Amino acid sequence: MIEIERKFLVISEDFKTESFKHTRIIQGFLNTDPNRTVRVRLKGEIGYLTVKGKSTNDGLKRFEWEKEISKSDAKALLNLCEEGIIDKMRYEVKAGKHVFEIDEFFVDNEGLIVAEVELEHENEKFELPDWLGKEVTGDIKYYNSQLSLMPYKTW
Amino acid sequence: MIEIERKFLVISEDFKTESFKHTRIIQGFLNTDPNRTVRVRLKGEIGYLTVKGKSTNDGLKRFEWEKEISKSDAKALLNLCEEGIIDKMRYEVKAGKHVFEIDEFFVDNEGLIVAEVELEHENEKFELPDWLGKEVTGDIKYYNSQLSLMPYKTW
Repeated sequence: MIEIERKFLVISEDFKTESFKHTRIIQGFLNTDPNRTVRVRLKGEIGYLTVKGKSTNDGLKRFEWEKEISKSDAKALLNLCEEGIIDKMRYEVKAGKHVFEIDEFFVDNEGLIVAEVELEHENEKFELPDWLGKEVTGDIKYYNSQLSLMPYKTW
Repeated sequence: MIEIERKFLVISEDFKTESFKHTRIIQGFLNTDPNRTVRVRLKGEIGYLTVKGKSTNDGLKRFEWEKEISKSDAKALLNLCEEGIIDKMRYEVKAGKHVFEIDEFFVDNEGLIVAEVELEHENEKFELPDWLGKEVTGDIKYYNSQLSLMPYKTW
C-alpha cells in the first residue's frame, strides 16, 4: 500500500505527559537502500518485517509493505541486519482525529526526537501541537535506515 | 532455521522424464548481499519472502527464514527488487528418500541447470542420479542472488 505521512522535529518533551501509550522499539535493516529498505522491528512483544520503496518527489508518499512476525523470528533476523541497530521509545499522542507517533532515539541517535502523523489524503488538515518544530517530511537523513548508517550524533 | 543443502550442476535433461512436478518460479532480490539476501519469489500461485544469511565455510549450512505471502504482495514487492529478475522452471525428482529440486534457468541464465538436495545431517548419504555433474555447494556464483547480478550468459 501507499502511505502518506508527514514528519516533524520535536522541540520539547511536553508530548510525554500527553502520551497515552509508549513502546520500546528495537530495529535493524536488511537493506538500507532508500529504493528498497527492508526493516526488522521488535516492538514490545511483536515483530514486524517491513519493506519500503522510495518516496515520491514531494516526500509525502511511500510504498510500504508490512508483515507481523514472531518475537523469536524478529530476534533471529536482527542478528543478520547491517550494523547500526536503532533503539528508541515510541510515544503515541492524540491530536484531534489524528495520532502522532513520536520517536525518542537512544544510543547513537540520542538527542533526536521526531514526530510523524499518517494522513488519508495529501491535503488533509491536522492539528499542530505546540511541541512540533520544523517539518522534515521527505528528508532522507531522517529515515531510520539512514540514521542507522549515519547516526544523529555524527551530524 | 539452518538449512543443509548440497548443490550440483546437471549434465543432461534426463531428469525431466523422471520429474513428478514442475513449477515456474519468478524471483527478484531486495538485497543481493550474501550476508543477508532478501528474496521475493512467485512460485506458481504462491508468493514467498525469504531471508538467507551467509553460508558456513564449508558452504553446507545457511540460515534461512521464509514466510508465505500473497501473489499480489509478491508482485508488488517484485517491482521494488534490484534489476536482474530470475525466471526458471523448477523440476522435482525423487531419488531414494530424497527429493532433488532441479532449476532450469531462462533469459540471462539460459543454459544453466542446477540441482539441489536438502539433507537432515551433514554426513547424510543420498543417491546420485546419472544426470548429476560437478558439485558446486557453497560456490557463491551459483547463488541465485549472484546469478541476478552476474548472469550465467556473462560468464
